[in-house]
Amino acid sequence: TAKLAMKLYIFVKKAWELGVNDPRKFIHCLKVGIALTAVSLFYYMKPLYDGVGGNAMWAVMTVVVVFEHTAGATIYKTINRICGTSLAGFLAFGVHWVASKAGDEFEPIIVGVSIFLLASAATFSRFIPTIKARFDYGAMIFILTFSVISISGYRIDKLMDMAQQRISTILIGTCLCIIVSLTICPIWAGQELHVLVTGNLDKVANSLQGCVDQYFSHSEASAEVNDEESNKKLLGYKCVLSSKGTEDVMANLARWEPAHGHFNFRHPWKQYLKVAASMRSCASCIDALIGCINSENKAPDHIKKNMSSISLKVGANCASLIKELAITMRNMKKSSKVDILIMEMNNSAQELQHLLKSYPNLVNAQDIETEVAAEIEISLVEIIQVVTIASLLIEIVARVKCIGRCVEELSD
Amino acid sequence: TAKLAMKLYIFVKKAWELGVNDPRKFIHCLKVGIALTAVSLFYYMKPLYDGVGGNAMWAVMTVVVVFEHTAGATIYKTINRICGTSLAGFLAFGVHWVASKAGDEFEPIIVGVSIFLLASAATFSRFIPTIKARFDYGAMIFILTFSVISISGYRIDKLMDMAQQRISTILIGTCLCIIVSLTICPIWAGQELHVLVTGNLDKVANSLQGCVDQYFSHSEASAEVNDEESNKKLLGYKCVLSSKGTEDVMANLARWEPAHGHFNFRHPWKQYLKVAASMRSCASCIDALIGCINSENKAPDHIKKNMSSISLKVGANCASLIKELAITMRNMKKSSKVDILIMEMNNSAQELQHLLKSYPNLVNAQDIETEVAAEIEISLVEIIQVVTIASLLIEIVARVKCIGRCVEELSD
Repeated sequence: TAKLAMKLYIFVKKAWELGVNDPRKFIHCLKVGIALTAVSLFYYMKPLYDGVGGNAMWAVMTVVVVFEHTAGATIYKTINRICGTSLAGFLAFGVHWVASKAGDEFEPIIVGVSIFLLASAATFSRFIPTIKARFDYGAMIFILTFSVISISGYRIDKLMDMAQQRISTILIGTCLCIIVSLTICPIWAGQELHVLVTGNLDKVANSLQGCVDQYFSHSEASAEVNDEESNKKLLGYKCVLSSKGTEDVMANLARWEPAHGHFNFRHPWKQYLKVAASMRSCASCIDALIGCINSENKAPDHIKKNMSSISLKVGANCASLIKELAITMRNMKKSSKVDILIMEMNNSAQELQHLLKSYPNLVNAQDIETEVAAEIEISLVEIIQVVTIASLLIEIVARVKCIGRCVEELSD
Repeated sequence: TAKLAMKLYIFVKKAWELGVNDPRKFIHCLKVGIALTAVSLFYYMKPLYDGVGGNAMWAVMTVVVVFEHTAGATIYKTINRICGTSLAGFLAFGVHWVASKAGDEFEPIIVGVSIFLLASAATFSRFIPTIKARFDYGAMIFILTFSVISISGYRIDKLMDMAQQRISTILIGTCLCIIVSLTICPIWAGQELHVLVTGNLDKVANSLQGCVDQYFSHSEASAEVNDEESNKKLLGYKCVLSSKGTEDVMANLARWEPAHGHFNFRHPWKQYLKVAASMRSCASCIDALIGCINSENKAPDHIKKNMSSISLKVGANCASLIKELAITMRNMKKSSKVDILIMEMNNSAQELQHLLKSYPNLVNAQDIETEVAAEIEISLVEIIQVVTIASLLIEIVARVKCIGRCVEELSD
């Protein structure tokens, strides 16, 4: 039991830290509590309860189901729920009217067939990508409401009352959700996407600089620096590679949000996804770079030294450009430094290419000067790793430029 | 309106193709229809209706909400719904008992406070990764049931009946879902994951072979071959890079599934994720490779020719190993060919390294033979692209070996 208690303690501690690191999670929990307590007033206050009766339950259910972490998700579910319910309600009435005209014998058959057909069709629509992205929840609510109302029509006489109460209670619940979600410390999906993408830019910059630094200044006292902290920085690009899913979800929800913060209405969220995609292609190049650095074909130190200053410069320039792009995105206005940094990066990349071009001369020079010096000549095998890293760096420069273009489009 | 009709026609056609390409989607829709029609019998048949009364609605709702595309998802929701409802029901009774002892004045306060606290706590638990992965839906259902039952307790006398009926109707609904989902053409998340991962292996193999072929046999009549079909193959690795989200979801759902098909109980789904991860690291190397192929520093054709046969061999060997690994996974037993293919791949990679090692001699040989031949000597700049591609190929070989190890672990 001591072991179990220990495990429980660790679990609770971790959970608590989760909230402490992002206090908005606590706030969200409180918001849910507030919304639920508010909606339960419909039970406690006699006049309110008399208005909606036992159907007050629908309002409570709506709050629980619709209230999501981000404002975008709440709005998305709200609109889907209202539209799905209304549409299904009307259709159910139509079917009920037809069925009741057809006589008692045919009524269950007509209702049953209509449920079968509409539920199948609505289920199929959830597979269609454009509908899935925007109206997945609405389609489910449509099936739900249509089935419940049209089946109930067989047993309940006052079907109209039921449908009306269902719609009005859902309206009450959704309004309450929207109000609580948007007024008390709202969490915008657009803002989250913005923070995620700009944070990822910084991560890419740190990873790139980290791995170039680690490789080229390895001979010096880097063993001490190479602690966990810097290792974590180095692996930041992995987060970038795996964050596509989150970004897509956020961009999809941000679409539903009204103007907020720095963002105007109809902010180009797709542009954020483009920045993220170009960033990911840069990150996969960094992945290959790190693979080459850790490969077996190690280059000897004297070769590395020859390249180190200029390679470090390319790495540092790329990193500072990416960081400046992140700052541009944060401030949402063009930074004059970006153009200078792009130029510097291009220059250093060109210097690196010049250095590479000068290499064969270097080999030849030694050959011609002294035949004896043949043993200290640079063989290609020794240079492979450095050459590969250099050309990967040049490729990374090209991809960073691509990020630059995407950010520029965004800032226009 | 003609334009609108055209758009609608295209939309419907696309949707139809979606189903034709994967007929299981149609089957799933029919299954939903069947389950809903079956559950509506509780309304049409008098004895059944008398058993559960107006609460038959809960059974219908359960079917709509719980029935998912894959068996794993349906089971996940079923278990979560039953556990969440039962737990919340018991707790709600406890709170109701305490509140009713406290007197009419305090009852709403006690109920309100308990809803606030429990809803906040349960909402918070949904942020904890381990709970989110397995009991996200259960936590929501817990909040829902607890709120509805404990609030209703204020107005309804026969609370016990309500709770009991809610639980029994949910049981009816979930049982129906499980039966329909598992007996009629079940779609297993584990099987889907299996198909996705093995299909992705093929995609990686095709991309790798495609890009090596395209680069090294470019001078020949590749322009005609380079049609859309082969381009699509070439870009297959991009699907691999972006399929992490789907894989995680599938692996998460597969955990809930009982033994099925080739899979025994407790199949190591995590191992599939490992294979997928190693495959992705290979794919990001291919991404860098394609970047290098398209870079500005083109190598002249005579240099490429020198390397082409061996590079093509490395590419083809890697690709056939990956395809063999995919076959191994499909058949779920070790293939004797894998070891041979690994050996062949290693050999060809070593040949490539030997060829690289022989290069500087080539340069020197020319230098020493004739001083005049200096203009036809190979400069490093010309060779950079080929060297980079070669060392990326060697890196890819290392990562393919990693895939091999993961698949081997899986087949053990």
